[in-house]
Amino acid sequence: MGTNATSNTPQEFVMRVIGYVRSPYTDPAATPIQPVYTDGCEARVEILPEYEAGLRDLEGFSHIYLIYYFHRAKPAQLTLQPYLEDVEHGVFATRAPHRPNPIGFSVVRLVERQGNALIVEDVDILDGTPLLDIKPFVPRFDYREGVRVGWQEQVAEEAAQTRGRRLHPPEDS
Amino acid sequence: MGTNATSNTPQEFVMRVIGYVRSPYTDPAATPIQPVYTDGCEARVEILPEYEAGLRDLEGFSHIYLIYYFHRAKPAQLTLQPYLEDVEHGVFATRAPHRPNPIGFSVVRLVERQGNALIVEDVDILDGTPLLDIKPFVPRFDYREGVRVGWQEQVAEEAAQTRGRRLHPPEDS
Repeated sequence: MGTNATSNTPQEFVMRVIGYVRSPYTDPAATPIQPVYTDGCEARVEILPEYEAGLRDLEGFSHIYLIYYFHRAKPAQLTLQPYLEDVEHGVFATRAPHRPNPIGFSVVRLVERQGNALIVEDVDILDGTPLLDIKPFVPRFDYREGVRVGWQEQVAEEAAQTRGRRLHPPEDS
Repeated sequence: MGTNATSNTPQEFVMRVIGYVRSPYTDPAATPIQPVYTDGCEARVEILPEYEAGLRDLEGFSHIYLIYYFHRAKPAQLTLQPYLEDVEHGVFATRAPHRPNPIGFSVVRLVERQGNALIVEDVDILDGTPLLDIKPFVPRFDYREGVRVGWQEQVAEEAAQTRGRRLHPPEDS
């Protein structure tokens, strides 16, 4: 294995915005913590025109990863209490936004492409969030067998559903 | 929905390296295209000491996302021919590394934590790759029902297995 890769590699990288998410969520404290807790919330992803060619054939995929910058994250914390549990964990063992590099991703449902805009559902992303990348969701690449989920094993599904929605209970319940 | 979020949001973001991946792969053309095509390849992820506290409780998770910078990607291409098919697609409809923001992620198996180092398996990542983030893999957040995978539907699983391994056939076959 290589031992001197660090000497040739920059320590910092500049990322450029490729678009923005337009969603109904304007309050971080009232935004669901994950797409699965959103009850279908629709949003519009506006890709900057110079990147539109990169969207070709994306509409064939029912689900996509949106990779974005948590622009309203607080300064990074190395240990923190995640939203689903009252115990502190290392930030890399959580999905919290207050990370050394505040990169987030969400699997959302792609409803329709309208030129350089994507209509998506199951969105847990704040309005105005800068987008960094889009990738297709491909179960044969991303699913795993025999998964253990550490401290999350202690969080009952019912509690996760209730806490994860935050101020967004299902309207029809 | 907000209409003026762009005016308050920077167009560029600086990401800092949090560690490096040490793997047996030194040739991009001979590196498997996805973790599922690696036949278990082991690697060591060295986290910079100042971020070690962020790893607390990560060892409870059997699988983690490594989010990294494709440091040997070619300049971004908006359309390209992915490794699994001989047809051009928009880059955002592929997992290719030559992206406007060359961010990659892999789901790898966490074998063991040794202080600020992680021993991982199922690695498709080049030696020396700069790491940006780690997140726990949590099926209840990330699995979806009724997924369609666009152009990938045309790629038979057998062909994907053969092409995806590239120069890494299973040693025991």
